[in-house]
Amino acid sequence: MAKYVYTFGGGQAEGRADQKELLGGKGANLAEMCRLGIPVPAGFTITTEVCTYFYDHDRTYPDSLEAEVDAALEAMAGVMGSRFGDPDDPLLVSVRSGARQSMPGMMETVLNVGLCSSTIPGMVRKTGNERFVYDAYRRLIMMYADVVLEKAAGLEPEEGEGIRLQLERLMDERKAARGVTLDTDLTAEDLKALCDAFKQRVEAVLGRPFPDDPSEQLWGAVGAVFQSWNGARAIHYRRIEGIPDEWGTAVNVQAMVFGNMGASSATGVAFTRNPATGENVFYGEWLVNAQGEDVVAGTRTPNAINEACRTETNRHLPTLEELMPDLYRQLLDVRDRLEHHYRDMQDLEFTIQEGRLWLLQTRTGKRNGPAAVRMAVDMVGEGLIDRREAVLRVRPDQLDELLHPMVDPKEEAGRQPLARGLPAGPGGAVGRIALTADRAQELGGLGEPVVLVRAETSPEDVHGMHAAQAIVTAKGGMTSHAALVARGWGKTCVVGCGALEIDVAAGTVTVGDTVFREGDVVTVNGTRGAIYAGEMPLIVIDPEKNETLATFLGWCDDLRRLGVRTNADRPEDAAQARRFGAEGIGLCRTEHMFFGEERIRAMREMILAETPQERARALDRLLPFQREDFNGIFRAMAGLPVTVRLLDPPLPEFVPHEDAQIEELARTMGRDPEAVRARVDQLQEMNPMLGHRGCRLGISFPEVTRMQARAILEAAAELRKEGVDARAEIMVPLVGHVDELRDQKRLILEVLEQVKAETGVDDLPVLVGTMIEVPRAALTAAEVAEEAEFFSFGTNDLTQMTCGFSRDDAGTFLPLYVEKGIYPQDPFQSIDQAGVGQLVLLGTRGGRSTREGLKVGVCGEHGGDPASIAFFHGAGLDYVSCSPFRVPIARLAAAQAAVSGEAP
Amino acid sequence: MAKYVYTFGGGQAEGRADQKELLGGKGANLAEMCRLGIPVPAGFTITTEVCTYFYDHDRTYPDSLEAEVDAALEAMAGVMGSRFGDPDDPLLVSVRSGARQSMPGMMETVLNVGLCSSTIPGMVRKTGNERFVYDAYRRLIMMYADVVLEKAAGLEPEEGEGIRLQLERLMDERKAARGVTLDTDLTAEDLKALCDAFKQRVEAVLGRPFPDDPSEQLWGAVGAVFQSWNGARAIHYRRIEGIPDEWGTAVNVQAMVFGNMGASSATGVAFTRNPATGENVFYGEWLVNAQGEDVVAGTRTPNAINEACRTETNRHLPTLEELMPDLYRQLLDVRDRLEHHYRDMQDLEFTIQEGRLWLLQTRTGKRNGPAAVRMAVDMVGEGLIDRREAVLRVRPDQLDELLHPMVDPKEEAGRQPLARGLPAGPGGAVGRIALTADRAQELGGLGEPVVLVRAETSPEDVHGMHAAQAIVTAKGGMTSHAALVARGWGKTCVVGCGALEIDVAAGTVTVGDTVFREGDVVTVNGTRGAIYAGEMPLIVIDPEKNETLATFLGWCDDLRRLGVRTNADRPEDAAQARRFGAEGIGLCRTEHMFFGEERIRAMREMILAETPQERARALDRLLPFQREDFNGIFRAMAGLPVTVRLLDPPLPEFVPHEDAQIEELARTMGRDPEAVRARVDQLQEMNPMLGHRGCRLGISFPEVTRMQARAILEAAAELRKEGVDARAEIMVPLVGHVDELRDQKRLILEVLEQVKAETGVDDLPVLVGTMIEVPRAALTAAEVAEEAEFFSFGTNDLTQMTCGFSRDDAGTFLPLYVEKGIYPQDPFQSIDQAGVGQLVLLGTRGGRSTREGLKVGVCGEHGGDPASIAFFHGAGLDYVSCSPFRVPIARLAAAQAAVSGEAP
Repeated sequence: MAKYVYTFGGGQAEGRADQKELLGGKGANLAEMCRLGIPVPAGFTITTEVCTYFYDHDRTYPDSLEAEVDAALEAMAGVMGSRFGDPDDPLLVSVRSGARQSMPGMMETVLNVGLCSSTIPGMVRKTGNERFVYDAYRRLIMMYADVVLEKAAGLEPEEGEGIRLQLERLMDERKAARGVTLDTDLTAEDLKALCDAFKQRVEAVLGRPFPDDPSEQLWGAVGAVFQSWNGARAIHYRRIEGIPDEWGTAVNVQAMVFGNMGASSATGVAFTRNPATGENVFYGEWLVNAQGEDVVAGTRTPNAINEACRTETNRHLPTLEELMPDLYRQLLDVRDRLEHHYRDMQDLEFTIQEGRLWLLQTRTGKRNGPAAVRMAVDMVGEGLIDRREAVLRVRPDQLDELLHPMVDPKEEAGRQPLARGLPAGPGGAVGRIALTADRAQELGGLGEPVVLVRAETSPEDVHGMHAAQAIVTAKGGMTSHAALVARGWGKTCVVGCGALEIDVAAGTVTVGDTVFREGDVVTVNGTRGAIYAGEMPLIVIDPEKNETLATFLGWCDDLRRLGVRTNADRPEDAAQARRFGAEGIGLCRTEHMFFGEERIRAMREMILAETPQERARALDRLLPFQREDFNGIFRAMAGLPVTVRLLDPPLPEFVPHEDAQIEELARTMGRDPEAVRARVDQLQEMNPMLGHRGCRLGISFPEVTRMQARAILEAAAELRKEGVDARAEIMVPLVGHVDELRDQKRLILEVLEQVKAETGVDDLPVLVGTMIEVPRAALTAAEVAEEAEFFSFGTNDLTQMTCGFSRDDAGTFLPLYVEKGIYPQDPFQSIDQAGVGQLVLLGTRGGRSTREGLKVGVCGEHGGDPASIAFFHGAGLDYVSCSPFRVPIARLAAAQAAVSGEAP
Repeated sequence: MAKYVYTFGGGQAEGRADQKELLGGKGANLAEMCRLGIPVPAGFTITTEVCTYFYDHDRTYPDSLEAEVDAALEAMAGVMGSRFGDPDDPLLVSVRSGARQSMPGMMETVLNVGLCSSTIPGMVRKTGNERFVYDAYRRLIMMYADVVLEKAAGLEPEEGEGIRLQLERLMDERKAARGVTLDTDLTAEDLKALCDAFKQRVEAVLGRPFPDDPSEQLWGAVGAVFQSWNGARAIHYRRIEGIPDEWGTAVNVQAMVFGNMGASSATGVAFTRNPATGENVFYGEWLVNAQGEDVVAGTRTPNAINEACRTETNRHLPTLEELMPDLYRQLLDVRDRLEHHYRDMQDLEFTIQEGRLWLLQTRTGKRNGPAAVRMAVDMVGEGLIDRREAVLRVRPDQLDELLHPMVDPKEEAGRQPLARGLPAGPGGAVGRIALTADRAQELGGLGEPVVLVRAETSPEDVHGMHAAQAIVTAKGGMTSHAALVARGWGKTCVVGCGALEIDVAAGTVTVGDTVFREGDVVTVNGTRGAIYAGEMPLIVIDPEKNETLATFLGWCDDLRRLGVRTNADRPEDAAQARRFGAEGIGLCRTEHMFFGEERIRAMREMILAETPQERARALDRLLPFQREDFNGIFRAMAGLPVTVRLLDPPLPEFVPHEDAQIEELARTMGRDPEAVRARVDQLQEMNPMLGHRGCRLGISFPEVTRMQARAILEAAAELRKEGVDARAEIMVPLVGHVDELRDQKRLILEVLEQVKAETGVDDLPVLVGTMIEVPRAALTAAEVAEEAEFFSFGTNDLTQMTCGFSRDDAGTFLPLYVEKGIYPQDPFQSIDQAGVGQLVLLGTRGGRSTREGLKVGVCGEHGGDPASIAFFHGAGLDYVSCSPFRVPIARLAAAQAAVSGEAP
């Protein structure tokens, strides 16, 4: 028969720390602390299997549960000396949730369970404190009415109408009647009368009395905790955190201890190291004569536990070390034992009841990025963990925090953002609002920090985006133009801030009732997706000067198998990425290079050309620009491979669509505006994503491919003459059939021979490969590899075509899909392993079946996503490529994948 | 050492009929005829391997070829008694091409090779006919100059400027000078002088003399034939017919025989059966004292060979049977031997030289559709072939000819079409031009046959398309809206007639200089893609009354494994398809049902609804329409399964986009036009193909799915109450993830339970399955089959997404791709087996791994394409579904696949 209840207490426990799946995190750690001889109030854990049973069996319990609970209560009595429900020497208990992974505040808790008319007198005798007992009783009634009875009655009151508020109002009335303002000013008599009033009100409103039986209270509380697993808040939280619905929660029933029983009682929370810096000092706060919730609530300023963690605000208050040195030493001893046992920083809750220390919880402590890196490196130095474990200790997104200025979390805590959006580019920025790209460039030119605020951005805004510290858009998703460009440049960016009403003509941004004008200062937190009015302080860590970080990333490099390249189109970005550890360029897009003023004109003339001669003339003008661009990039990446993708986007993206612009273009081209308009209209497509783009352009207009190949190869030849080791890899986009690649490769190799002959540079190594981004290319990879000298999975487009999602349009249904759990997360952010991932596996296997050891990489957004990187590691890819600021994150994620040995 | 030359003649041959790959069709059959003892002028075949060698080795021959040719000439001398180049008793030869598959007129021929100054006297002696010899000589010079010398000189004269024309002009001048009009009026002396003039002109114009050496003539002619394999005409023909470039041609060198040596000579062509009707009678034409080209040229009316094939035009001329009864009996004997040997209808060429019969060629004869079916059925009756072979004897496109009225081929021959376009819907039609759908409906209502001529069609034109006999569009491809709708209805259709300039306002269609007005009569041949001015006669065969066809299709049904269903949205179409042998409906689209006037209004209100209540009201109005539609279809298909696809296309397809229409819609809806315009704009998508459509609609708006499920199930329940066996299969479109299907299936099954309860019909069998049209669905088919009770591959969309081709936009590059040979054919017409086909295989295997014996079908255009059907047969699918008029074709193609046993 299954065992549903695990007891702990008195230095013994039936459970262990590694039973989190069964006992939840809290229960498993309470058991483990008992086993370590750390003082823990006795109790027991009802397993997560009961939760599963509860939902599978119409919200009932297994038959054997009641007997097991009774036996566990009996065991508690044996350890604690008092007994649950015993009128003479009653024991009170807390009933708390405890899931496998912490879900703070998302489920229910009931304290002081066991107080009723039969046990109150005994409790008063035992504590000698009638006021304390009735205060505990009124807390129990309030909590129980709210958590158990109101929900059981099926009431879902609007905010401000629930039973809890009604009871609080009764208490306020009592305080008013008594002429006092603090709860603590109410006497035992007041509280006693209040408890009676509470119970009447509960019965009147909820139609059932507050139960006067300890056992009924206990089972009511246990049921409420299980019910709360499927409460709206908990479900919502699980969606965000990716916690499966079927895990369920455990329930922990534990003897109450009280930190509010006078001057020899206290309560506190502590971290075994400083969670904000990682420094190896014991760090915590406490309050004398208080309950746990008081420390968190912030109504009293908590004391520091020791000198090391005193701050400005509590400098004047005595430390625990000063006031209760013995107990502090006991706690310090607990700290050392826990850290050595768990080999990680712990987050503790403790209570001192009348001079006796009790530990109520231990769990791995949350920390910020800088602290995570420091602790990991320090603990290796202290011999607590090895490097492989150290690498697993830092979450990739924590590393992100080290690479960007951050909005100071202390300042941000508790502040209401002006607006929220999607966190499209991490980091923090402060600047003046600019509503157009030109205005942003102008302000930037004056040395002013700028936040560019647009409805959405287009390639014509890039100069303003570049000039800005941060970019904010009202529309668009995580893969909108703004998001892609911002991430490429490591700029702070928030997109999809629907609350912003932008009026460019009036020069205003309106949020609700507040109106901002161009030039007003705002603060942007791109890590959280929040905008604040006014200036907030930023914290800046220079990653290149951070030795701890360098050490840590060095270990990552030693451990990983996957190479890390970067996506960069400009020499500055390439250089930045190289400083961040990039081992080459995996994707150099050439189309961004066409947006300079003179370039776009030549580009448009090329597109609108009516004869091959006209097209050739325009291309001749583009050639020197492109050659110069490639020269800079090859130089920045000397000695490392640079993968250049030939022209990819649909041509309509380069031509104007407004009448005035078309007229101007026609004038500069000396053409009839009607003819230009006709050609522009002719270029329009129903589904440009699946239209005339990628290598289809190069096949229709071979002269475009020739020009680009020439620009690349001439630049490489020039540099090699100078002794610079330029390593070009030319990548043909949107190949679906090997013959497309064959056609383009032939052109490229012809140009190669010409350039060799013209420049006299014979040693001009170049690879010709392809993007694998059309499903057909992955399916026929064995054939494609007959021509391709490398593969690079373009997982953005591969996802679009494999799932049938247009990235531009998916906003109408994809959020609903994620909300409904159809896709666990946005497949454009983290690769859809079951679907798109299969094509990555098939394509890699197919390509290498033809060409052994074929170099296979990934460019596109997924190359910087840790979960995707783990998948690519398992798939046996050679490298990932990501935006410069994600290079360190990719190095870490690749190392973690190697250490975890994940394979799909 | 390879053998390059195969001799034949004198009842013996080195080659055989099954060596077509090596000897070409002509050479193999000449050899076979020799082996059968049929009189064939002796000769030899230079193999196709020499052609391959020729192109692989810079247009040179294998070393051993010359010696083999010499030996073969020697062997010819042995059989024929005279010797090539022998001044005393010279033998003349013909040099002809002969590819594996006939390419009529696409390559070169040179006759009378071997005549020169040294052999002419001997030839004159031998024939006793100087005029005959010089006539042969001037023909040789003309042909040789044109075919060999002009090409060798590298001249590519414009039409009307070549050497041939210059020589013909010389001949005309001579006739004028002599005051005669017919070639035959020129004397031996005239011809002799003409030959000298010819030779002078040749040397003057082409810079080299006409060779006076038999051997040089022979090798020149052989080289010209090999060169002509890569002539522009031949390459173009191979592209159209799908003949691989690497096959190459053989060269046949054969002793000349002459049908123009007087009254006891003759020449003719014959078919062993009537190629136009299939009737088992010997059928042919001949001319006394003539050469082969005279029969074809049409300058003299040819005689019939026997009474049975006399026609109006040659009724007065004697038959071969009458004039040369002995030779006719010999020929009849040859006919019987050949037909029994080849067990198929043969197409013969014969020459009678001075009373002696020679066969110059036999090959399988071309035939039209009705004849093909009749011959196949007759030959089974005669015991020549079995049913399996009979089924292989009719090409699926020939069957098409039986199912539609045809433009009478006799009338069409030699007529110049007004315009050409793509053959989008087969058959022929005559009607009055209508330029709008309304006008078409109006004319149709008056009982006038109508040809609807539009730039392109949209769903708003369907009433006019339905009223028309034929549809012609100036734009669009084989899968344009017009093409799809026309094929669905079996209507004649020609699309992409670029030459048509349509001016709806003026009511005119202009083609070049010709202007047509609405109401003018045109004839459309949708099988060939041609439009003619005025009325041409049509031939109509009623397939249902054609017993031979019924017999033939019955054999197909016995042999095939693959089921054949139809795509039909209307009861009439369903009934038609059933008469054609459909075994159910594989795709009933519901969206066409929304285009009636009242329906489209409710549909638009549904789409533009701002609240679920508004949407529900609009849906309530649509429900009865849909129920009625399904009732009709289920009734027409009683006892057979009907697969209904839920709403699929993007919503913008249903709403108006013009200001006036939007205003009217707003008025009828009582809404602000601005608000309606805003909602219409909001619906617009960048890539609607990959946007908010298919099951994404049903997931966003579950009430739409519920309404459709209810309409289907209520209709089925109604009919079952009446005792009609309605078998509904509900198909969820655009599923990419099993959870999408799970979501929609749950809704459908909920409605099923409701309908059962409401109607009291408990026995309401229904399957819920899915389209497999998103690559991800095929890749995760094992999971999708957890929910799907059947699969139906939607290969149209699957092709779009797998290849990354938007069908609407591919016109800009796909024709180029096919021209360049990147795709052997348009993958929307015949399935891309290597790419999309792999997903069909993966999906089928995956689905059946979860659900053994899962029913898997194909809907979409490929279900009616014979090559695709063969693939689906091999892939183990259960059925294909196609438009009603393609059902018989699919039955045949499925049978052929089963007989051929093709497997991918």
